[in-house]
Amino acid sequence: MEKRTFQITVEYDGTDFHGWQRQKNESTIQGEIEAALQTIVGQPITVAGSGRTDAGVHALGQVASFTCDTRLDSQALLNGLNALLPDAIVIKDCCQVDHSFHARFSAKGKIYHYRLLNSRLPSAIERRYAWHVSRTLDRSAMRAAIGHIIGTHDFSAFEASGSPRSHTRRTISRAQLIEEENQLLVLEIEADGFLRHMVRNIVGTLVAVGIGKISVSEFEAILQSKDRSRAGA
Amino acid sequence: MEKRTFQITVEYDGTDFHGWQRQKNESTIQGEIEAALQTIVGQPITVAGSGRTDAGVHALGQVASFTCDTRLDSQALLNGLNALLPDAIVIKDCCQVDHSFHARFSAKGKIYHYRLLNSRLPSAIERRYAWHVSRTLDRSAMRAAIGHIIGTHDFSAFEASGSPRSHTRRTISRAQLIEEENQLLVLEIEADGFLRHMVRNIVGTLVAVGIGKISVSEFEAILQSKDRSRAGA
Repeated sequence: MEKRTFQITVEYDGTDFHGWQRQKNESTIQGEIEAALQTIVGQPITVAGSGRTDAGVHALGQVASFTCDTRLDSQALLNGLNALLPDAIVIKDCCQVDHSFHARFSAKGKIYHYRLLNSRLPSAIERRYAWHVSRTLDRSAMRAAIGHIIGTHDFSAFEASGSPRSHTRRTISRAQLIEEENQLLVLEIEADGFLRHMVRNIVGTLVAVGIGKISVSEFEAILQSKDRSRAGA
Repeated sequence: MEKRTFQITVEYDGTDFHGWQRQKNESTIQGEIEAALQTIVGQPITVAGSGRTDAGVHALGQVASFTCDTRLDSQALLNGLNALLPDAIVIKDCCQVDHSFHARFSAKGKIYHYRLLNSRLPSAIERRYAWHVSRTLDRSAMRAAIGHIIGTHDFSAFEASGSPRSHTRRTISRAQLIEEENQLLVLEIEADGFLRHMVRNIVGTLVAVGIGKISVSEFEAILQSKDRSRAGA
C-alpha cells in the first residue's frame, strides 16, 4: 500500500477533555482521534494538529493531518472516524492532500472566539461556553485596548509563565469585540499563531480594562513590557 | 412569621437531570430547588412548577412558585438559592406575589423551542441542544403541516401513550418554523399548556412530513384521529 496524507477538520466540545494534546492517562482530542484511526487502519498513527488547545476550549473547525498506509478513501475514513469517536468529537471534513501538507506548518491562520457573558446573573445554558462577568464592561475602553494588539508584537507578556521562549512574536491580523444577543460579547482574534494561554491572558487583561481596574494605556504598557507578571488573570 | 408566596424564574440545562418533577432516587430540577430552599428556610417546601418537563429539556425561563415562613426578602432568597444550586440551574428572578398566585394555574402561556440541526453531519457543540436530522427537510411542507395545529384541538394523537385522559384539549396560539444560522431550524410553539410528550410527538411527526414519509394531509388526519398510535416517533 501507498502512504497517503489526509487533512481532517474537527469540531469538538472540549468540556470533558484535557485539551488537544495526547496525554498518557487523560482523555484528549488527539488521543481519541488517534485511537479511532488505529482501530480503522490497524496501525498506530500520529495526528498533527494545527495547534494545541487547552482544556475546556471548544473547536468549530480545527484542522489536523496524518499520514498512513490505507486503501480507504477519505469518505470511508470520515464515516469510520465518526462511527468510532465519542459524540463530543465530530470529523466535519476529510480529504486527501499532498504529502507536503502539515496541519501546523501549513496553517495560514487561526481564529479564536472567546465568549463573555456580561450579565448580573450567570447562565445555566451558557456556563460551558462563556466566561460570566457580572460587572458591567466598558465596551469602548475594551475596543480601544484591543486596537493595540493588532499587528506584529512580542507577546511574552501574555504567554503562560514557564513556557519555552524560543519565538514569541506573533502577528494578529484581526481583533474585535462583537456584541451579540442576550448580553453575550465575543472577542474574535485572528493570528498566524498563538502562544500558550495567550488568548485567555489577553482576555483576562481586557476584562481588567473593561471593569476599570487598569486603563487602556496601562494595557498598552503591559503588552510592551513583555513581562508576564503584569497581565491579568 | 408570616407565610409569604414567591414566584421564581428558572433557567436550566436539563442534560444531567431527570426532568422537572421530584423523584425519589433521581436528581430533578424541582428536587434540587426544594432541597436548596429547605437548607435556606429550615423547613420542607413544595415548589409548584408551571409545568413538568421531560428529561433532556432545557429552560430559559420556567416559572415556579412556593409558599413559606421566612423573613428573607426575595433578593436574599435569590442569592441563597443561586449559591446552593448546581451551576446547571440558575434562578434568574425572584419576587413576592399574592398568595393566590400558583405557577401552574396562573400561567398565561408556555413557549417551547424545539431545535433541529438539519445537516449531513452531526455537531459536537449542538449535540445537547438540537435533534440532528441528516436528511434534507422540506421546510414548506413542514410549514403547511404546522398551520393545522394552530387553534384549539384535542391533542390526544400527540400525547404520551398511557397518559391520564382527563382533559386533552389545548389551544396553540402560535406555531412556526424559524430558519436560523448554521443549518439550525427552531420550531416555536406557544400554547396555554402541553400534554405529556406533546411537543416531541408533534416534532417527530413534523419531521416525518419534512422527509416525505407522510404528507401534509396525513399529518392533518393524524391530528384529527386522536389516535396516539398514528403519530411519529
